[in-house]
Amino acid sequence: MNNYLPLSGSPKRALIRMFYESPMTPEEIEQQSFSLIDSEIPCHRFSPAEWHVVRRMIHTAGDVALVDKIEFSRSAIESAIQALKSGKRLFVDSNMVRSGLSLERLRKVHADYSRNDISCHVSDSDVASLARASALPRSLFAVRKAKPILDGCIAVFGNSPIALMELNRLIIEDAIKPSIVVAMPVGFVHVAESKRELMSLGVPYIAVTGRRGGSPLAVSVIHALCGLAEPG
Amino acid sequence: MNNYLPLSGSPKRALIRMFYESPMTPEEIEQQSFSLIDSEIPCHRFSPAEWHVVRRMIHTAGDVALVDKIEFSRSAIESAIQALKSGKRLFVDSNMVRSGLSLERLRKVHADYSRNDISCHVSDSDVASLARASALPRSLFAVRKAKPILDGCIAVFGNSPIALMELNRLIIEDAIKPSIVVAMPVGFVHVAESKRELMSLGVPYIAVTGRRGGSPLAVSVIHALCGLAEPG
Repeated sequence: MNNYLPLSGSPKRALIRMFYESPMTPEEIEQQSFSLIDSEIPCHRFSPAEWHVVRRMIHTAGDVALVDKIEFSRSAIESAIQALKSGKRLFVDSNMVRSGLSLERLRKVHADYSRNDISCHVSDSDVASLARASALPRSLFAVRKAKPILDGCIAVFGNSPIALMELNRLIIEDAIKPSIVVAMPVGFVHVAESKRELMSLGVPYIAVTGRRGGSPLAVSVIHALCGLAEPG
Repeated sequence: MNNYLPLSGSPKRALIRMFYESPMTPEEIEQQSFSLIDSEIPCHRFSPAEWHVVRRMIHTAGDVALVDKIEFSRSAIESAIQALKSGKRLFVDSNMVRSGLSLERLRKVHADYSRNDISCHVSDSDVASLARASALPRSLFAVRKAKPILDGCIAVFGNSPIALMELNRLIIEDAIKPSIVVAMPVGFVHVAESKRELMSLGVPYIAVTGRRGGSPLAVSVIHALCGLAEPG
Protein backbone atom coordinates (compact mmCIF):
# COMPACT_ATOMS: atom_id res chain seq x y z
CA MET A 1 0.00 0.00 0.00
CA ASN A 2 2.72 2.54 0.89
CA ASN A 3 3.98 2.15 -2.67
CA TYR A 4 1.56 4.81 -3.72
CA LEU A 5 1.88 7.19 -0.84
CA PRO A 6 4.33 9.82 -2.03
CA LEU A 7 7.57 9.71 -0.07
CA SER A 8 8.91 13.11 0.86
CA GLY A 9 11.10 14.34 -1.98
CA SER A 10 10.06 11.52 -4.33
CA PRO A 11 7.49 12.05 -7.05
CA LYS A 12 3.92 10.96 -6.35
CA ARG A 13 3.15 7.50 -7.68
CA ALA A 14 0.06 7.23 -9.89
CA LEU A 15 -2.63 4.82 -8.70
CA ILE A 16 -2.98 3.34 -12.17
CA ARG A 17 0.54 1.88 -11.83
CA MET A 18 -0.88 -0.53 -9.24
CA PHE A 19 -3.51 -1.48 -11.80
CA TYR A 20 -0.79 -2.07 -14.42
CA GLU A 21 0.93 -4.44 -11.98
CA SER A 22 -2.28 -6.31 -11.05
CA PRO A 23 -4.59 -5.67 -13.99
CA MET A 24 -8.21 -6.75 -14.04
CA THR A 25 -10.24 -7.39 -17.15
CA PRO A 26 -13.53 -5.52 -17.53
CA GLU A 27 -15.27 -8.82 -16.76
CA GLU A 28 -13.30 -9.22 -13.52
CA ILE A 29 -14.11 -5.63 -12.50
CA GLU A 30 -17.78 -6.33 -13.18
CA GLN A 31 -17.72 -9.56 -11.16
CA GLN A 32 -16.04 -7.81 -8.24
CA SER A 33 -18.67 -5.07 -8.39
CA PHE A 34 -21.47 -7.63 -8.41
CA SER A 35 -19.93 -9.42 -5.42
CA LEU A 36 -19.78 -6.14 -3.52
CA ILE A 37 -23.43 -5.41 -4.32
CA ASP A 38 -24.44 -8.94 -3.24
CA SER A 39 -22.60 -8.48 0.05
CA GLU A 40 -24.19 -5.07 0.70
CA ILE A 41 -27.70 -6.31 -0.15
CA PRO A 42 -27.88 -9.83 1.30
CA CYS A 43 -31.71 -9.85 1.42
CA HIS A 44 -34.19 -8.53 -1.12
CA ARG A 45 -37.67 -9.05 -2.56
CA PHE A 46 -36.69 -10.01 -6.14
CA SER A 47 -36.71 -13.29 -8.08
CA PRO A 48 -33.29 -14.50 -9.32
CA ALA A 49 -33.99 -13.17 -12.83
CA GLU A 50 -35.21 -9.84 -11.46
CA TRP A 51 -32.11 -9.60 -9.24
CA HIS A 52 -29.94 -10.09 -12.33
CA VAL A 53 -31.53 -6.90 -13.71
CA VAL A 54 -31.58 -4.98 -10.41
CA ARG A 55 -27.93 -5.73 -9.67
CA ARG A 56 -26.83 -4.43 -13.05
CA MET A 57 -28.92 -1.28 -12.50
CA ILE A 58 -27.27 -0.71 -9.09
CA HIS A 59 -23.87 -1.28 -10.72
CA THR A 60 -24.72 1.31 -13.38
CA ALA A 61 -25.96 3.86 -10.83
CA GLY A 62 -23.15 3.25 -8.34
CA ASP A 63 -25.83 3.35 -5.67
CA VAL A 64 -27.29 0.50 -3.62
CA ALA A 65 -30.11 2.80 -2.41
CA LEU A 66 -31.74 2.31 -5.80
CA VAL A 67 -32.83 -1.17 -4.68
CA ASP A 68 -35.95 0.24 -3.00
CA LYS A 69 -37.14 2.08 -6.10
CA ILE A 70 -37.21 -0.68 -8.72
CA GLU A 71 -40.51 -2.34 -9.62
CA PHE A 72 -41.40 -5.18 -12.01
CA SER A 73 -44.84 -6.15 -13.25
CA ARG A 74 -45.58 -9.82 -12.73
CA SER A 75 -44.76 -10.96 -16.27
CA ALA A 76 -42.14 -8.35 -17.11
CA ILE A 77 -39.03 -10.51 -17.42
CA GLU A 78 -40.69 -13.30 -19.41
CA SER A 79 -42.36 -10.87 -21.78
CA ALA A 80 -39.14 -8.91 -22.32
CA ILE A 81 -37.07 -12.05 -22.98
CA GLN A 82 -39.64 -13.32 -25.46
CA ALA A 83 -39.64 -9.94 -27.25
CA LEU A 84 -35.83 -9.88 -27.53
CA LYS A 85 -35.72 -13.47 -28.75
CA SER A 86 -38.31 -12.59 -31.40
CA GLY A 87 -36.26 -9.60 -32.54
CA LYS A 88 -38.97 -7.06 -31.64
CA ARG A 89 -38.11 -3.46 -32.44
CA LEU A 90 -36.96 -1.05 -29.77
CA PHE A 91 -38.41 2.43 -29.34
CA VAL A 92 -36.13 4.69 -27.29
CA ASP A 93 -36.80 8.23 -26.05
CA SER A 94 -33.31 9.70 -26.34
CA ASN A 95 -30.17 9.56 -28.43
CA MET A 96 -28.19 8.79 -25.29
CA VAL A 97 -30.16 5.56 -24.88
CA ARG A 98 -29.61 4.71 -28.53
CA SER A 99 -25.89 5.37 -28.36
CA GLY A 100 -25.57 3.36 -25.14
CA LEU A 101 -27.28 0.23 -26.48
CA SER A 102 -24.89 -2.49 -27.62
CA LEU A 103 -25.87 -4.02 -30.94
CA GLU A 104 -23.44 -6.82 -30.17
CA ARG A 105 -25.43 -7.76 -27.06
CA LEU A 106 -28.75 -7.59 -28.91
CA ARG A 107 -27.35 -9.82 -31.68
CA LYS A 108 -26.32 -12.47 -29.18
CA VAL A 109 -30.04 -12.88 -28.52
CA HIS A 110 -31.38 -12.37 -32.06
CA ALA A 111 -28.78 -12.32 -34.84
CA ASP A 112 -30.82 -10.09 -37.18
CA TYR A 113 -30.90 -7.02 -34.92
CA SER A 114 -29.60 -3.90 -36.70
CA ARG A 115 -29.38 -0.17 -35.86
CA ASN A 116 -32.62 0.25 -37.83
CA ASP A 117 -34.44 -1.78 -35.20
CA ILE A 118 -33.75 0.99 -32.64
CA SER A 119 -36.15 3.87 -33.35
CA CYS A 120 -35.50 7.30 -31.88
CA HIS A 121 -37.26 10.23 -33.49
CA VAL A 122 -36.42 13.00 -31.04
CA SER A 123 -33.92 14.67 -33.41
CA ASP A 124 -35.96 14.20 -36.62
CA SER A 125 -36.60 17.45 -38.45
CA ASP A 126 -40.36 16.84 -38.84
CA VAL A 127 -40.61 16.21 -35.10
CA ALA A 128 -38.66 19.41 -34.38
CA SER A 129 -40.99 21.40 -36.66
CA LEU A 130 -44.11 20.10 -34.92
CA ALA A 131 -42.57 20.92 -31.54
CA ARG A 132 -41.65 24.44 -32.61
CA ALA A 133 -45.11 25.09 -34.04
CA SER A 134 -46.90 23.89 -30.89
CA ALA A 135 -44.39 24.81 -28.14
CA LEU A 136 -44.80 21.24 -26.88
CA PRO A 137 -41.82 18.93 -26.26
CA ARG A 138 -40.21 17.10 -29.18
CA SER A 139 -40.33 13.85 -27.23
CA LEU A 140 -44.14 13.88 -27.45
CA PHE A 141 -44.13 14.06 -31.24
CA ALA A 142 -41.34 11.47 -31.36
CA VAL A 143 -43.73 8.98 -29.70
CA ARG A 144 -46.58 9.88 -32.06
CA LYS A 145 -44.34 9.35 -35.07
CA ALA A 146 -43.42 5.89 -33.76
CA LYS A 147 -47.05 4.84 -33.26
CA PRO A 148 -47.06 2.28 -36.13
CA ILE A 149 -44.28 0.30 -34.44
CA LEU A 150 -45.22 0.64 -30.76
CA ASP A 151 -47.56 -2.35 -30.48
CA GLY A 152 -45.45 -5.33 -29.39
CA CYS A 153 -42.27 -3.26 -29.24
CA ILE A 154 -39.67 -2.88 -26.51
CA ALA A 155 -40.30 0.70 -25.31
CA VAL A 156 -37.42 2.35 -23.43
CA PHE A 157 -37.72 5.64 -21.55
CA GLY A 158 -34.65 7.06 -19.83
CA ASN A 159 -35.35 10.72 -20.20
CA SER A 160 -38.76 12.16 -20.94
CA PRO A 161 -41.88 11.81 -18.77
CA ILE A 162 -43.92 13.54 -21.48
CA ALA A 163 -42.92 10.79 -23.91
CA LEU A 164 -43.96 8.13 -21.40
CA MET A 165 -47.28 9.90 -20.76
CA GLU A 166 -47.94 10.01 -24.51
CA LEU A 167 -47.28 6.27 -24.70
CA ASN A 168 -49.64 5.81 -21.74
CA ARG A 169 -52.33 7.64 -23.73
CA LEU A 170 -51.84 5.35 -26.73
CA ILE A 171 -52.12 2.34 -24.39
CA ILE A 172 -55.35 3.73 -22.88
CA GLU A 173 -57.02 5.15 -25.97
CA ASP A 174 -55.71 3.03 -28.84
CA ALA A 175 -55.06 -0.31 -27.14
CA ILE A 176 -51.36 -0.21 -28.05
CA LYS A 177 -49.58 -2.90 -26.01
CA PRO A 178 -45.79 -2.93 -25.93
CA SER A 179 -44.09 -6.23 -25.02
CA ILE A 180 -42.24 -4.40 -22.25
CA VAL A 181 -41.99 -0.79 -21.09
CA VAL A 182 -38.72 0.24 -19.43
CA ALA A 183 -40.03 3.26 -17.52
CA MET A 184 -37.13 5.38 -16.26
CA PRO A 185 -37.69 9.02 -17.14
CA VAL A 186 -35.97 11.31 -14.66
CA GLY A 187 -36.73 14.68 -13.08
CA PHE A 188 -38.98 16.78 -10.89
CA VAL A 189 -42.03 17.61 -13.00
CA HIS A 190 -44.51 14.99 -14.34
CA VAL A 191 -41.99 12.20 -13.70
CA ALA A 192 -43.33 10.24 -10.72
CA GLU A 193 -46.91 10.55 -12.08
CA SER A 194 -45.92 9.30 -15.53
CA LYS A 195 -44.58 6.10 -13.98
CA ARG A 196 -47.52 5.62 -11.60
CA GLU A 197 -49.90 5.90 -14.55
CA LEU A 198 -47.92 3.39 -16.65
CA MET A 199 -47.88 0.93 -13.75
CA SER A 200 -51.68 1.01 -13.59
CA LEU A 201 -52.29 0.07 -17.22
CA GLY A 202 -51.76 -3.69 -17.22
CA VAL A 203 -48.81 -3.75 -19.60
CA PRO A 204 -45.48 -5.42 -18.69
CA TYR A 205 -43.08 -2.89 -17.14
CA ILE A 206 -39.78 -2.44 -15.35
CA ALA A 207 -39.80 0.93 -13.58
CA VAL A 208 -37.77 3.16 -11.28
CA THR A 209 -40.40 4.85 -9.14
CA GLY A 210 -40.20 8.50 -8.12
CA ARG A 211 -37.90 11.12 -9.59
CA ARG A 212 -34.85 9.04 -10.42
CA GLY A 213 -34.07 7.23 -13.65
CA GLY A 214 -31.90 8.07 -16.63
CA SER A 215 -30.55 6.78 -19.91
CA PRO A 216 -27.72 4.64 -18.47
CA LEU A 217 -30.19 2.85 -16.18
CA ALA A 218 -32.57 2.19 -19.07
CA VAL A 219 -29.70 0.86 -21.18
CA SER A 220 -28.50 -1.35 -18.32
CA VAL A 221 -31.94 -2.96 -18.11
CA ILE A 222 -31.88 -3.92 -21.79
CA HIS A 223 -28.34 -5.29 -21.48
CA ALA A 224 -29.28 -7.31 -18.39
CA LEU A 225 -32.33 -8.69 -20.21
CA CYS A 226 -30.06 -9.67 -23.13
CA GLY A 227 -27.93 -11.59 -20.64
CA LEU A 228 -31.02 -13.48 -19.45
CA ALA A 229 -32.27 -14.08 -23.01
CA GLU A 230 -28.96 -15.31 -24.49
CA PRO A 231 -28.95 -18.98 -25.40
CA GLY A 232 -26.91 -21.15 -23.03
CA MET B 1 -58.39 16.82 -10.37
CA ASN B 2 -61.19 14.23 -10.55
CA ASN B 3 -61.10 14.68 -14.31
CA TYR B 4 -58.43 12.06 -14.47
CA LEU B 5 -59.75 9.63 -11.92
CA PRO B 6 -61.62 7.04 -13.96
CA LEU B 7 -65.36 7.10 -13.26
CA SER B 8 -66.91 3.68 -12.94
CA GLY B 9 -67.95 2.51 -16.37
CA SER B 10 -66.20 5.40 -18.14
CA PRO B 11 -62.85 4.92 -19.85
CA LYS B 12 -59.73 5.97 -17.97
CA ARG B 13 -58.55 9.46 -18.89
CA ALA B 14 -54.90 9.76 -19.88
CA LEU B 15 -52.81 12.15 -17.76
CA ILE B 16 -51.27 13.70 -20.85
CA ARG B 17 -54.70 15.16 -21.74
CA MET B 18 -54.29 17.51 -18.78
CA PHE B 19 -50.94 18.50 -20.22
CA TYR B 20 -52.56 19.16 -23.61
CA GLU B 21 -55.01 21.48 -21.88
CA SER B 22 -52.34 23.31 -19.85
CA PRO B 23 -49.17 22.73 -21.79
CA MET B 24 -45.76 23.81 -20.56
CA THR B 25 -42.76 24.51 -22.74
CA PRO B 26 -39.54 22.63 -21.99
CA GLU B 27 -38.19 25.93 -20.57
CA GLU B 28 -41.18 26.26 -18.24
CA ILE B 29 -40.76 22.65 -17.06
CA GLU B 30 -37.09 23.34 -16.40
CA GLN B 31 -37.87 26.54 -14.46
CA GLN B 32 -40.48 24.73 -12.35
CA SER B 33 -37.95 21.98 -11.63
CA PHE B 34 -35.33 24.53 -10.60
CA SER B 35 -37.82 26.28 -8.30
CA LEU B 36 -38.62 22.96 -6.65
CA ILE B 37 -34.92 22.24 -6.13
CA ASP B 38 -34.38 25.73 -4.70
CA SER B 39 -37.25 25.21 -2.28
CA GLU B 40 -36.01 21.79 -1.17
CA ILE B 41 -32.41 23.02 -0.70
CA PRO B 42 -32.78 26.51 0.80
CA CYS B 43 -29.22 26.51 2.27
CA HIS B 44 -26.00 25.22 0.74
CA ARG B 45 -22.24 25.75 0.63
CA PHE B 46 -21.91 26.81 -3.04
CA SER B 47 -21.20 30.12 -4.78
CA PRO B 48 -23.97 31.38 -7.11
CA ALA B 49 -22.07 30.12 -10.19
CA GLU B 50 -21.40 26.74 -8.56
CA TRP B 51 -25.06 26.47 -7.57
CA HIS B 52 -26.02 27.04 -11.22
CA VAL B 53 -24.04 23.88 -12.01
CA VAL B 54 -25.15 21.89 -8.95
CA ARG B 55 -28.83 22.64 -9.53
CA ARG B 56 -28.65 21.41 -13.11
CA MET B 57 -26.89 18.25 -11.92
CA ILE B 58 -29.63 17.61 -9.34
CA HIS B 59 -32.24 18.22 -12.05
CA THR B 60 -30.50 15.69 -14.28
CA ALA B 61 -30.22 13.08 -11.52
CA GLY B 62 -33.74 13.65 -10.16
CA ASP B 63 -32.17 13.50 -6.72
CA VAL B 64 -31.53 16.29 -4.24
CA ALA B 65 -29.32 13.96 -2.15
CA LEU B 66 -26.60 14.51 -4.73
CA VAL B 67 -25.99 17.96 -3.23
CA ASP B 68 -23.66 16.50 -0.58
CA LYS B 69 -21.45 14.72 -3.10
CA ILE B 70 -20.46 17.53 -5.47
CA GLU B 71 -17.05 19.19 -5.11
CA PHE B 72 -15.39 22.07 -6.98
CA SER B 73 -11.75 23.05 -6.91
CA ARG B 74 -11.24 26.71 -6.09
CA SER B 75 -10.76 27.93 -9.65
CA ALA B 76 -12.91 25.33 -11.42
CA ILE B 77 -15.70 27.52 -12.76
CA GLU B 78 -13.47 30.35 -13.97
CA SER B 79 -11.06 27.96 -15.66
CA ALA B 80 -13.88 26.03 -17.34
CA ILE B 81 -15.59 29.18 -18.60
CA GLN B 82 -12.31 30.48 -20.01
CA ALA B 83 -11.68 27.14 -21.75
CA LEU B 84 -15.13 27.11 -23.35
CA LYS B 85 -14.82 30.74 -24.46
CA SER B 86 -11.45 29.90 -26.05
CA GLY B 87 -12.97 26.93 -27.89
CA LYS B 88 -10.74 24.37 -26.16
CA ARG B 89 -11.23 20.78 -27.28
CA LEU B 90 -13.25 18.32 -25.24
CA PHE B 91 -12.04 14.84 -24.41
CA VAL B 92 -14.90 12.54 -23.33
CA ASP B 93 -14.70 8.97 -22.04
CA SER B 94 -17.87 7.52 -23.55
CA ASN B 95 -20.05 7.71 -26.60
CA MET B 96 -23.02 8.44 -24.35
CA VAL B 97 -21.32 11.66 -23.21
CA ARG B 98 -20.55 12.59 -26.80
CA SER B 99 -24.10 11.93 -27.96
CA GLY B 100 -25.54 13.88 -25.03
CA LEU B 101 -23.47 17.02 -25.61
CA SER B 102 -25.31 19.78 -27.45
CA LEU B 103 -23.23 21.37 -30.19
CA GLU B 104 -25.80 24.16 -30.25
CA ARG B 105 -25.02 25.04 -26.63
CA LEU B 106 -21.26 24.88 -27.21
CA ARG B 107 -21.61 27.17 -30.24
CA LYS B 108 -23.46 29.77 -28.20
CA VAL B 109 -20.20 30.16 -26.27
CA HIS B 110 -17.72 29.72 -29.12
CA ALA B 111 -19.15 29.74 -32.64
CA ASP B 112 -16.42 27.54 -34.16
CA TYR B 113 -17.13 24.42 -32.07
CA SER B 114 -17.71 21.36 -34.26
CA ARG B 115 -18.20 17.60 -33.63
CA ASN B 116 -14.47 17.20 -34.34
CA ASP B 117 -13.70 19.18 -31.19
CA ILE B 118 -15.24 16.36 -29.11
CA SER B 119 -12.74 13.49 -28.99
CA CYS B 120 -13.85 10.03 -27.91
CA HIS B 121 -11.64 7.11 -28.86
CA VAL B 122 -13.28 4.30 -26.92
CA SER B 123 -14.77 2.70 -30.05
CA ASP B 124 -11.74 3.22 -32.33
CA SER B 125 -10.49 -0.01 -33.88
CA ASP B 126 -6.83 0.60 -32.91
CA VAL B 127 -7.92 1.17 -29.31
CA ALA B 128 -9.99 -2.04 -29.39
CA SER B 129 -6.99 -4.01 -30.73
CA LEU B 130 -4.70 -2.75 -27.98
CA ALA B 131 -7.32 -3.62 -25.38
CA ARG B 132 -7.80 -7.13 -26.77
CA ALA B 133 -4.08 -7.75 -26.92
CA SER B 134 -3.50 -6.63 -23.32
CA ALA B 135 -6.81 -7.59 -21.63
CA LEU B 136 -6.89 -4.04 -20.24
CA PRO B 137 -9.91 -1.74 -20.66
CA ARG B 138 -10.36 0.16 -23.92
CA SER B 139 -10.97 3.37 -21.97
CA LEU B 140 -7.31 3.32 -20.84
CA PHE B 141 -5.99 3.22 -24.41
CA ALA B 142 -8.54 5.83 -25.43
CA VAL B 143 -6.92 8.27 -22.99
CA ARG B 144 -3.41 7.40 -24.21
CA LYS B 145 -4.46 8.00 -27.81
CA ALA B 146 -5.78 11.45 -26.83
CA LYS B 147 -2.55 12.45 -25.05
CA PRO B 148 -1.54 15.07 -27.68
CA ILE B 149 -4.75 17.03 -27.06
CA LEU B 150 -5.17 16.63 -23.28
CA ASP B 151 -3.09 19.59 -22.14
CA GLY B 152 -5.45 22.56 -21.80
CA CYS B 153 -8.48 20.49 -22.83
CA ILE B 154 -11.88 20.08 -21.19
CA ALA B 155 -11.72 16.48 -19.92
CA VAL B 156 -15.06 14.81 -19.23
CA PHE B 157 -15.44 11.46 -17.44
CA GLY B 158 -18.91 10.03 -16.93
CA ASN B 159 -18.11 6.38 -17.10
CA SER B 160 -14.66 4.93 -16.62
CA PRO B 161 -12.50 5.23 -13.48
CA ILE B 162 -9.63 3.53 -15.35
CA ALA B 163 -9.72 6.35 -17.91
CA LEU B 164 -9.64 8.96 -15.13
CA MET B 165 -6.77 7.15 -13.40
CA GLU B 166 -4.81 7.11 -16.67
CA LEU B 167 -5.38 10.86 -17.00
CA ASN B 168 -4.21 11.24 -13.39
CA ARG B 169 -0.97 9.45 -14.34
CA LEU B 170 -0.39 11.80 -17.27
CA ILE B 171 -0.96 14.76 -14.93
CA ILE B 172 1.53 13.34 -12.41
CA GLU B 173 4.19 11.96 -14.73
CA ASP B 174 3.98 14.13 -17.84
CA ALA B 175 2.76 17.45 -16.40
CA ILE B 176 -0.37 17.39 -18.57
CA LYS B 177 -2.77 20.04 -17.22
CA PRO B 178 -6.36 20.09 -18.48
CA SER B 179 -8.29 23.36 -18.17
CA ILE B 180 -10.96 21.49 -16.26
CA VAL B 181 -11.62 17.86 -15.35
CA VAL B 182 -15.26 16.83 -14.97
CA ALA B 183 -14.72 13.76 -12.79
CA MET B 184 -17.86 11.63 -12.68
CA PRO B 185 -17.02 8.01 -13.38
CA VAL B 186 -19.48 5.67 -11.71
CA GLY B 187 -19.32 2.28 -10.04
CA PHE B 188 -17.98 0.12 -7.24
CA VAL B 189 -14.37 -0.68 -8.15
CA HIS B 190 -11.60 1.95 -8.47
CA VAL B 191 -14.18 4.75 -8.70
CA ALA B 192 -13.99 6.62 -5.40
CA GLU B 193 -10.17 6.33 -5.41
CA SER B 194 -9.87 7.65 -8.97
CA LYS B 195 -11.68 10.82 -7.92
CA ARG B 196 -9.78 11.25 -4.65
CA GLU B 197 -6.51 11.02 -6.58
CA LEU B 198 -7.64 13.57 -9.18
CA MET B 199 -8.71 15.97 -6.43
CA SER B 200 -5.20 15.87 -4.94
CA LEU B 201 -3.35 16.89 -8.10
CA GLY B 202 -3.85 20.65 -8.22
CA VAL B 203 -5.78 20.77 -11.49
CA PRO B 204 -9.21 22.42 -11.76
CA TYR B 205 -12.00 19.89 -11.25
CA ILE B 206 -15.72 19.42 -10.73
CA ALA B 207 -16.33 16.01 -9.15
CA VAL B 208 -19.02 13.76 -7.75
CA THR B 209 -17.31 11.99 -4.86
CA GLY B 210 -17.82 8.32 -4.03
CA ARG B 211 -19.47 5.76 -6.28
CA ARG B 212 -22.02 7.87 -8.09
CA GLY B 213 -21.62 9.74 -11.35
CA GLY B 214 -22.62 8.97 -14.93
CA SER B 215 -22.72 10.32 -18.44
CA PRO B 216 -25.88 12.44 -18.05
CA LEU B 217 -24.38 14.19 -14.99
CA ALA B 218 -21.14 14.89 -16.85
CA VAL B 219 -23.09 16.28 -19.80
CA SER B 220 -25.23 18.44 -17.50
CA VAL B 221 -22.09 20.03 -16.07
CA ILE B 222 -20.84 21.06 -19.51
CA HIS B 223 -24.27 22.44 -20.44
CA ALA B 224 -24.48 24.39 -17.18
CA LEU B 225 -20.99 25.80 -17.77
CA CYS B 226 -22.10 26.83 -21.28
CA GLY B 227 -24.96 28.73 -19.66
CA LEU B 228 -22.50 30.58 -17.43
CA ALA B 229 -20.10 31.26 -20.30
CA GLU B 230 -22.66 32.50 -22.81
CA PRO B 231 -22.35 36.18 -23.62
CA GLY B 232 -25.10 38.34 -22.09
